[in-house]
Order: sequence, then C-alpha cells, then structure tokens
Amino acid sequence: MPYEFTLSHRVEFAETDMAGIVHFANYYRMMENAEHAFFRSLGFTVHGHEVGTTIGWPRVNAACDFLKPLRFEEVVDIQLLVAEVRARSIRYAFRFWKNEDGQRTEIARGSVTTVCATVNKATGKLEAAAIPEAIRASIQPAPAEMLAPFSSKPE
Amino acid sequence: MPYEFTLSHRVEFAETDMAGIVHFANYYRMMENAEHAFFRSLGFTVHGHEVGTTIGWPRVNAACDFLKPLRFEEVVDIQLLVAEVRARSIRYAFRFWKNEDGQRTEIARGSVTTVCATVNKATGKLEAAAIPEAIRASIQPAPAEMLAPFSSKPE
Amino acid sequence: MPYEFTLSHRVEFAETDMAGIVHFANYYRMMENAEHAFFRSLGFTVHGHEVGTTIGWPRVNAACDFLKPLRFEEVVDIQLLVAEVRARSIRYAFRFWKNEDGQRTEIARGSVTTVCATVNKATGKLEAAAIPEAIRASIQPAPAEMLAPFSSKPE
Amino acid sequence: MPYEFTLSHRVEFAETDMAGIVHFANYYRMMENAEHAFFRSLGFTVHGHEVGTTIGWPRVNAACDFLKPLRFEEVVDIQLLVAEVRARSIRYAFRFWKNEDGQRTEIARGSVTTVCATVNKATGKLEAAAIPEAIRASIQPAPAEMLAPFSSKPE
Repeated sequence: MPYEFTLSHRVEFAETDMAGIVHFANYYRMMENAEHAFFRSLGFTVHGHEVGTTIGWPRVNAACDFLKPLRFEEVVDIQLLVAEVRARSIRYAFRFWKNEDGQRTEIARGSVTTVCATVNKATGKLEAAAIPEAIRASIQPAPAEMLAPFSSKPE
Repeated sequence: MPYEFTLSHRVEFAETDMAGIVHFANYYRMMENAEHAFFRSLGFTVHGHEVGTTIGWPRVNAACDFLKPLRFEEVVDIQLLVAEVRARSIRYAFRFWKNEDGQRTEIARGSVTTVCATVNKATGKLEAAAIPEAIRASIQPAPAEMLAPFSSKPE
Repeated sequence: MPYEFTLSHRVEFAETDMAGIVHFANYYRMMENAEHAFFRSLGFTVHGHEVGTTIGWPRVNAACDFLKPLRFEEVVDIQLLVAEVRARSIRYAFRFWKNEDGQRTEIARGSVTTVCATVNKATGKLEAAAIPEAIRASIQPAPAEMLAPFSSKPE
Repeated sequence: MPYEFTLSHRVEFAETDMAGIVHFANYYRMMENAEHAFFRSLGFTVHGHEVGTTIGWPRVNAACDFLKPLRFEEVVDIQLLVAEVRARSIRYAFRFWKNEDGQRTEIARGSVTTVCATVNKATGKLEAAAIPEAIRASIQPAPAEMLAPFSSKPE
C-alpha cells in the first residue's frame, strides 16, 4: 500500500521575495500540493463527494524547518511520507530536495496533520468525521527508518 | 451619494518579489480590498445574504497600468472611484498614491468590472442577477473630471 | 521564429477562494508563468545575467477578461501569443483554455506589456533598456488572425 | 523592555479558500506581518541597513496549530511574544485571537524562529550574523507564564 509520493515543482517568480529566495509561506502550499497530488494518484480528491456530504481536510498543525534557500526557476522535489493514520486524522511528513551538480541536497523538512471533516451544507461549518474506509484502506505509514529523520531536529 | 473611497495599505514583505518591488499580481488584490472596504463603509458586505440567496461579485475584467514601483513597508493609498453603475454590473476605477517628502506620486492606475451574481446553493454555480436596490441606491458614478484620467493611457 | 507557447496548469487548492473558484489575481500569475516558461523554451531566463548587469522585466500593463470560472483540480492551458515587439518592450496576449467532454472552452483572455530593464546593483532601481539582440532575434509577433480576438471585447 | 506586540488584521477575500475559511498558509504571513510591525514599533526595520551591509531575517522554523477557522471580514488579533533571544536568532511565539459576542476565542497558536543574516551584495547569499546590539538591547523574552501555553500542545 502506498506511503510515499514525490511532486516536482519549478519555483515561480511570484514565490520569491525581496531577499531573492522563496518566501517561507509558500513551503506550506507546496506540502499541500504534494498531499493533493498523492490523493489524486490514489484515485481520490481532497474535496470529494460522498452521498449527501462533502469531505474536507482542514489542517490541525503544520510545521517546517528551512535548511537551505530555494531560488527562482530551481526545481524542487517535494517528497511526501505518510507518518501516521488515525481514525479521523492523517499526519504527513515532507522532505524537500534539490538536485544540483549530480548531488541531492535537502532544502526543507516539514509535517502537516490534517483531520477528516464533513462540510455541513446548511451552515458551511466543518465537523470532524471518520476517514472514509476506501481512503484508510489505500494508505499506510511509511517504514520507521524513512520517518527517523523527523524524530530529531535537523542539524 | 458616495462615489469615492480610499484604503491605506502598508506593503508586506510577502508582497515583494526578487526584483525588490511589489509583485504586480498583488495590485489586483489591493483593488479588491479597497472595493470591499468601500462596501463595508456603506454597511454592505460583498458576500451578503438575501432571503435564501447569497450575493457574489465575480470579476468580468480587471486591468492595471504600473507607473512606479512600490517597496516593502511603503504606505500606499488605494483610491476607489465608482466609474459606472449598470443593472447587473459595476465598474470601478482605481488610483494608487504614495506620499513621499510632502509629494503625492501616482504609482498605478487600474479598473475592475464586477457583475452581481447569486450563488446557487445546490450547484454552487454563479448566475448574473440585478444589483440589489439597496446597493444601487447607495452609490453613484464619480464626477466626469475625476474619471478623465482613465479615458486616456497614462504617459 | 517562435510566437506561441502553451503552459498547462492544474488548479491548486490555495488558488481558490470562498466563492469556490480560482481567485482572479491568480490569472496574472498564470500569465507570468507562461511567459517565463516561454523564455525558458527559447533558452533564456527572465532574470538573466549579462556582463555586469541583471535584466529584469517589470510590467507596464496587465489586463484580463474573465469568461468562465475555473475550479479546483481542473487543468487549464495558458496559451501565450507574442502580440508586439518594440525596442524596449514586449506585449503578450493570452488565452486560457479548458478541455472538457472533448470540448475546448475559453476561460479567460488577457494581455501583459513588459519592459526590458536593467537592475542597477548599487541602487536596486530598475532602468528601461533595449531588449538584448539575442532575445529580439528569437521571437516575432503571432500572425494577425491569431491576434484578431484581442482587437474586440469578448461577448 | 518590550516582549509583546499585537497586530490586528481583517481577513481579506483572497485569503479564503473554497472551504470558506482562511487558507492555512496565510497564518504564516500573518505571523510575519506581526513580527515586522513589532520591529517598526521599536524603530527598526527587518530589512535594515548597517554600514555596507543589509540585514535579513531568514526563517529557520515555523509552526502553527489551527484551533478554529477564520472567515472573510473577521478581525483577528495576532499577539506576538518574544520567546527566546540568542546570539544570532530570535524565537517568537504567537497567539491568534478573535473577539465575538464579548468573548475572546483563541484561533491559532504558532511560533517562528528566525536567524539574523547579512546579505552578501556580491553573491546575494545570506550569511548568519550576530544580532545588532541595538536590537538585542531593545527586546527581552516574555515572562514564563505568558509562554506556558506553548510548552504543551493545545487540547
């Protein structure tokens, strides 16, 4: 069962700031984009439709360590790892990689915890819900050694 | 009746790009923010609620001439002018101003045409609709001399 | 000589707004991304380096007509057309297309005028400059019939 | 000496997503905006100029717990607390508050660690540096009881 996915992204001009590097808030969008591409690779969408309800995935926590800067037009590989699957929530771990001169450099390391929720159409409010069985049955946590870098701070 | 409104904004770090200036896509957000603040000043919201419907204001056209750059922490005044009110749409004109050394410099000049629409709750689709009378009765076009700069391209 | 380029883009969650469609300011980023991908296809970068100088391309004007909404995870083709090449500036025209049920629907139609500028490293200011010959020699305006839709407003 | 600052922000339309709430990546921009406003309140700028150098503050880590959603036009108070001051880095803690019906609700809780860096003008690269004495002498960590909520996860 899948526990890993990599999305490649070429840095856009609008993602940079006056320091000449990718603004840090964009890393959270990149993690989310990898998560959504992972879902699509499984045949799901993060904004799917069950009978009479709409599933959403509001974020509970997101964190990122920034190790090296990213610059305009560089290509970054955003590696998603499923870190934990619970009844109503999933935790993902992310590693950002850049390939340069035949070398793979780690750029950033992050995590996102997201909870399954149904959108109440009348009120528009989100209510926590069990992850649909079809999704739970499709994913599993990555092996412990792949998640080991996340148990300690990067140097 | 009101036809003018000014919103002040201090440039945020994340609005700049690697050229050291405000990225041009942010000017469209600034125009929209001035429009929404104008609506609030009239006692309305752009995402209001009538009986059983939700009003929205999708954009039909937006344009901007960029005259001078804007930099981090500079304060810009976004001057909204009502340019035209039709049965289902409103056109706004905008002038961006910076005050520096006792001088007022024009930074940019834009326009947004927006159409009144109701959001069909079942389908989520937007359908053009007559502007609510309460809103139409609250605004009017600015005097011709204030709109004159918009009939020709800025030098 | 090239005068056309198409960039495909899948709509990201963060590009949508509470109306459930792509926020209009993102269309300007999409046009810019197509422009930069066009430059890369020619072997250039929009933030290139000549001896002792850095070339930049500040925007003079950008406009867009919004014809149909775009939604999360839809794929949009951003078609760039070179509309005009002058000594110091280039005007691009853009058409946004969506393929659905074997049909190609036009989503939006825009334009961007950008001026060639050198960044003065000491002051950080942008100064207009002649377009480098290597770039001028690589592009040409699209045929008149391809640009015809831009001479009149879309219905 | 100051260790606290609050910035108020009214949610913009472009900050919402199709779930009808503020997209989570925007909380990181809000924290940064509070940090920059705090610096301005002390008479500094985050992009200041010493003799021959430019100081920057690249992010080392940023994290946020999302407790309640934020919606369009709501006003949020972003409360910054200085959590730790080291030779080359500062850690800030943040609490997001909303006032509603005479009640103050916590919306989110985050942190940002930022390192002082000088921008090498020749290469454009960032190099870690000691925090200027004028800045170090102007701030101090908040009292332990104000930081206590950050030593454990929010329920």
